[in-house]
Amino acid sequence: MYTIGIDYGSNAVRVLLANAESGHVVATAAVDYGQAEAGVYTDATDDNIARQDARDYMDSLVKAFKDLKANSKLVGFDWNLVRGIGVDATGSTPIPVTKEMKPISSLDEFRNNLNAKAWMWKDHTSEEEALKITRLAKELRPDFMKTCGGKYSSEWFWAKVWHCANVDQAVFDAAYTWVEFSDYIPAVLCGITNATDIKRNACAAGHKALYNSKWGGYPDKEFIQQLDKRLVKVVERLPEKALSVNQLAGYLCDEWAEILGLPKGIAVAIGALDAHVGAIGSGVNNQTLVKIIGTSTCDIIVGNDASATINGVSGIAEDSVIPGFLGIEAGQSAVGDIFKWFVEGLLGKDGSSHKELTEKAEALKPAQSGLLALDWNNGNRNILGDPNLRGMIVGQSLHTKDYEVYRALIEATAFGARRIIDQLESAGVTINRIVCCGGIPQKNKLFMQIYTDVLNRPVEVAESDETVALGAAMIGALAAAQNDGERVLLTDLQKRFCKTGSLNYQPEAENVTVYNELYQLYLLMHDAFGTTDANGNLYSVMKQLIQLKNRL
Amino acid sequence: MYTIGIDYGSNAVRVLLANAESGHVVATAAVDYGQAEAGVYTDATDDNIARQDARDYMDSLVKAFKDLKANSKLVGFDWNLVRGIGVDATGSTPIPVTKEMKPISSLDEFRNNLNAKAWMWKDHTSEEEALKITRLAKELRPDFMKTCGGKYSSEWFWAKVWHCANVDQAVFDAAYTWVEFSDYIPAVLCGITNATDIKRNACAAGHKALYNSKWGGYPDKEFIQQLDKRLVKVVERLPEKALSVNQLAGYLCDEWAEILGLPKGIAVAIGALDAHVGAIGSGVNNQTLVKIIGTSTCDIIVGNDASATINGVSGIAEDSVIPGFLGIEAGQSAVGDIFKWFVEGLLGKDGSSHKELTEKAEALKPAQSGLLALDWNNGNRNILGDPNLRGMIVGQSLHTKDYEVYRALIEATAFGARRIIDQLESAGVTINRIVCCGGIPQKNKLFMQIYTDVLNRPVEVAESDETVALGAAMIGALAAAQNDGERVLLTDLQKRFCKTGSLNYQPEAENVTVYNELYQLYLLMHDAFGTTDANGNLYSVMKQLIQLKNRL
Repeated sequence: MYTIGIDYGSNAVRVLLANAESGHVVATAAVDYGQAEAGVYTDATDDNIARQDARDYMDSLVKAFKDLKANSKLVGFDWNLVRGIGVDATGSTPIPVTKEMKPISSLDEFRNNLNAKAWMWKDHTSEEEALKITRLAKELRPDFMKTCGGKYSSEWFWAKVWHCANVDQAVFDAAYTWVEFSDYIPAVLCGITNATDIKRNACAAGHKALYNSKWGGYPDKEFIQQLDKRLVKVVERLPEKALSVNQLAGYLCDEWAEILGLPKGIAVAIGALDAHVGAIGSGVNNQTLVKIIGTSTCDIIVGNDASATINGVSGIAEDSVIPGFLGIEAGQSAVGDIFKWFVEGLLGKDGSSHKELTEKAEALKPAQSGLLALDWNNGNRNILGDPNLRGMIVGQSLHTKDYEVYRALIEATAFGARRIIDQLESAGVTINRIVCCGGIPQKNKLFMQIYTDVLNRPVEVAESDETVALGAAMIGALAAAQNDGERVLLTDLQKRFCKTGSLNYQPEAENVTVYNELYQLYLLMHDAFGTTDANGNLYSVMKQLIQLKNRL
Repeated sequence: MYTIGIDYGSNAVRVLLANAESGHVVATAAVDYGQAEAGVYTDATDDNIARQDARDYMDSLVKAFKDLKANSKLVGFDWNLVRGIGVDATGSTPIPVTKEMKPISSLDEFRNNLNAKAWMWKDHTSEEEALKITRLAKELRPDFMKTCGGKYSSEWFWAKVWHCANVDQAVFDAAYTWVEFSDYIPAVLCGITNATDIKRNACAAGHKALYNSKWGGYPDKEFIQQLDKRLVKVVERLPEKALSVNQLAGYLCDEWAEILGLPKGIAVAIGALDAHVGAIGSGVNNQTLVKIIGTSTCDIIVGNDASATINGVSGIAEDSVIPGFLGIEAGQSAVGDIFKWFVEGLLGKDGSSHKELTEKAEALKPAQSGLLALDWNNGNRNILGDPNLRGMIVGQSLHTKDYEVYRALIEATAFGARRIIDQLESAGVTINRIVCCGGIPQKNKLFMQIYTDVLNRPVEVAESDETVALGAAMIGALAAAQNDGERVLLTDLQKRFCKTGSLNYQPEAENVTVYNELYQLYLLMHDAFGTTDANGNLYSVMKQLIQLKNRL
């Protein structure tokens, strides 16, 4: 028995074939999205816009399967042994569709309209709507805000759908409903052609679409009406229940079975967000923090008692990772994206330069660059929950080198990570173990050592460099087992699929001491630029950066 | 009758031949220093170190004369018509020499010792000594500090000489005396081989070596002894009087007449600092601010009543520009150096890229980059008088481009310039006219328009792109006339030599409005990072940068 994982990231789709019993990965393939810039449509007049095309998702999947099948290891492989498919995708990435499940962007009249496309998670156009939702919810439904750190985000479902209604009524009117990317793919694979039949996953619905069993599912019509009566049709067309990854989205339809060369009618699991699936693939457990570090970072913690609000932490949702447990979610809006911006966007070098810069940065000691940065080039998702923040670098001399800035940017993201852990722990969340995955941790030892030293605790790295696709394959295996009437738990599968140990890091005492001092300066700037109530005299910042450097 | 100007800048020497009667420039030549990196010795372990070799100065002069003489315009020119030489150099750049006027760096035992070389103006190693001088002077000789903005600088004579005594006693002991670069060159040209015969210029002596007629010249021995008794020999060997540029350093010696191919025994004027001579060459007048903008900026204002301290402004000296008038001096420690660092040091591009970046930056409106920077990569000379400050850039997104940073860096230096003018005017100094020169103003229209808009007043540009060398030639003409017994004033010469008018700038109202707002944010950051008493909540900075950008 074999299982397929399909992982839709920000810029590429990955497919993974694994033996469902041993957990052994047989082959993988990845294809970058083909439209716009690595799949992302931007707008020079508004940096907040980030859209994608649903057609691009399907075209890239076809290519990825072609690549997978061309893998020499798979010559003679019997594809009839594949019994399940699991899917994850980025989110909240809502896609406007017709009643017949056609993306609005596929209609002639909207073909070149960015508002008709998928509104990518990192689209920050709906900040105003997010603020209004927070305000109204605090007034009328305070419980809503307890699950999302006290603040609704412009990255989430309702803010985006509402913003579309406000800026492009034609698209809004043409949309029968809005489907999360992570529900859209399973629905297409299952051949669903009536939008009312789409199943919605609890992971994307969770706090992001304000779904919670405490108040009976999605938000009530009265509340939505108070926001904007045009949104009522949207909430009315959402199902009563959102489902978790141990349930079925349906069965692979004939058309897609043929296109992908897979057996017809095999089980397709309910989708989930990539980060949550990555946490599954990394072996997330009670009191484990899984950090999925790629273009951005998503932090996932499972199973803690987190009934209270954790200020500034973006979400607490039921069943969002492991069915039956709470999932706490936090994150940083840009991590790898910041390094990519610096190296490719600002320095104008190509992607291969990351390696050279890392090697040079490795020769530096903490504080040696004399630099300190804030990791807010794409706003701050947590703790401040504010997209209207920007990056900052302080400490440049006339001798500052590119690799020094590169290291300072890595350090800034590490300080941002520590700030989130501090907040979780001070709210009573227990973290006994940290596991990193997502691409950067497996590739960049300097990055991991800096994180370990800044966090001052051992950090594990998931052995698989495709934990998200692996987690998706595990969900596919779960779906297949369920379809066969077997009772399997995700935690059973993790024992077979998930490995750590060969790439673990220990903090180095000398570095820890210096980073503790730099972190204090980071906090000073974090609060001075990010909050209204900091005292914020920053005279000590440049002085201490110079002193710490001179002390070396 | 012809005159030669010799201008020693930070990285190159320029020579200029002019008709002394008409002011017409016949030919020029410039040669980069040949040793180290464009003449500057640095040390990877200490960014504050910047040294040069006296030998390099003379070698480069020989080359520059070779180039001048190879100029096709000068075929058949009768070099016997040259009657005077004027010299300027950077400073305070003290050089340790033996009693026989040999640079200590030319002695075998000190050949590779950076402390034995010329201590370049931008060397910032002696910050601690500068602080101690300030402290002791405030206690014992409060008048001393009135002439230097309340703070002695690590860039100046006594701090550097003392630092050498503290870190390299052997060099200090080997030095009979320390000669300013701008005195060393005339002395060498005049064949002076006894260090006691060296004449010292009032311009470099001024506040930089604490020379003032109020207290009878250089500081008194009692004061120096309180600083450090080892320094007493240094002050004892300084002359009673420092001289101004309308006096003679001596006559061109046979040896150098031969090397340079000039008539023996022609008049060599007393030297002066490059900025002050540039002010002369730009036509500085009563209530004129001359901004000499190159690697750094020097601001020179002449003739105002400035008997009181101007807080944070580096110097007020007698006779330092136009004999008989006061010269007020301020400046920014890095301007062109910041652009050079960004383009060549950080981006790793070559010097020709400045043009391309300027063109792209020109297409931006004020606030469009969303960026704001502090111009402190080399510390802040005025208003804060603190070398232990560093650069800062705030507002980076994931889309920030190199030319946006480039423009933000230009704007930062313009805000720094405005901050100095604000301080001068609030201390009662009248500025009726601004004339820019120094290289960048003639070459970069974007730079000049940004300055004009930020300063919100008309700005003139000196037509000559070598106002410093031109000023040096004017001093040479003055020396020649004096030698011939003629009575000529610098202001007479300016009427013939100095032209402005073809490259003047007017502020554009729309830009002025936006820059007024950005300047307020600059001040907020200036005070938050640069002073201990700012309230300093910076929450508004990123918010307003985003708002100003969105308003476009």
